[in-house]
Amino acid sequence: MSQQVAVLFANEAFYVAFAACDYRAMDALWSGRERVSCIHPGWNALAGRDAVMQSWRAILANPGAPRVGCRNALVHMLDDTAYVVCYEAIDGGFLVATNVFVREGGDWMMVHHQAGAAPPPPPEQPDERPDLLQ
Amino acid sequence: MSQQVAVLFANEAFYVAFAACDYRAMDALWSGRERVSCIHPGWNALAGRDAVMQSWRAILANPGAPRVGCRNALVHMLDDTAYVVCYEAIDGGFLVATNVFVREGGDWMMVHHQAGAAPPPPPEQPDERPDLLQ
Repeated sequence: MSQQVAVLFANEAFYVAFAACDYRAMDALWSGRERVSCIHPGWNALAGRDAVMQSWRAILANPGAPRVGCRNALVHMLDDTAYVVCYEAIDGGFLVATNVFVREGGDWMMVHHQAGAAPPPPPEQPDERPDLLQ
Repeated sequence: MSQQVAVLFANEAFYVAFAACDYRAMDALWSGRERVSCIHPGWNALAGRDAVMQSWRAILANPGAPRVGCRNALVHMLDDTAYVVCYEAIDGGFLVATNVFVREGGDWMMVHHQAGAAPPPPPEQPDERPDLLQ
């Protein structure tokens, strides 16, 4: 499995945890080593694991929270750091997100997330679907 | 000068070029090596240097464009990659941004920018102003 695909899996795990309102899974995929940060749409920027995880605990505990799905994920590899730009289909509309990951041992751990309002995504391009057998 | 301060200077150079509508300066600070990306508020995500620089050419050519200033910049170092979370004071309101940089030789080059609507920033914290003599 290429590192690009490993990052895509880490990004997908984030959206699976988000959609399932699974706080434990969400907690497990954020780095415990780096000073993480997060910018939810319309919120002030959060810095530090305590503030970031407290925000996710509140968001995922909300039973009325809309379900989210990831679209058009595009990975940018920068050695042991990577970021993904993707769309979030949520509540009939779309957000667009930047998700930053760092490689810690064999795992790609999330260190930063920003999401903001966006128009609908364009049709997916072939180079946004890397070959899983790379 | 610490690498953290070097990243802050690169981030500041981005906002100086932006505020001055200086396309050449803007072009010079984006990486020519990585596949860069950019998410302007309310736009679709842009990928690749041609699309990103075309967007900046259009934005900076607009004589009615509001001036922008950077506030509360906080650097996150990830070896030869770094990202800055900061606020943009623009047209009486605020955006919050993620700016990603990579170290290419002695320079920190921009590879990604996302900005989205935000409330006013909180008062700046002492640890957001690193000692320039570090």
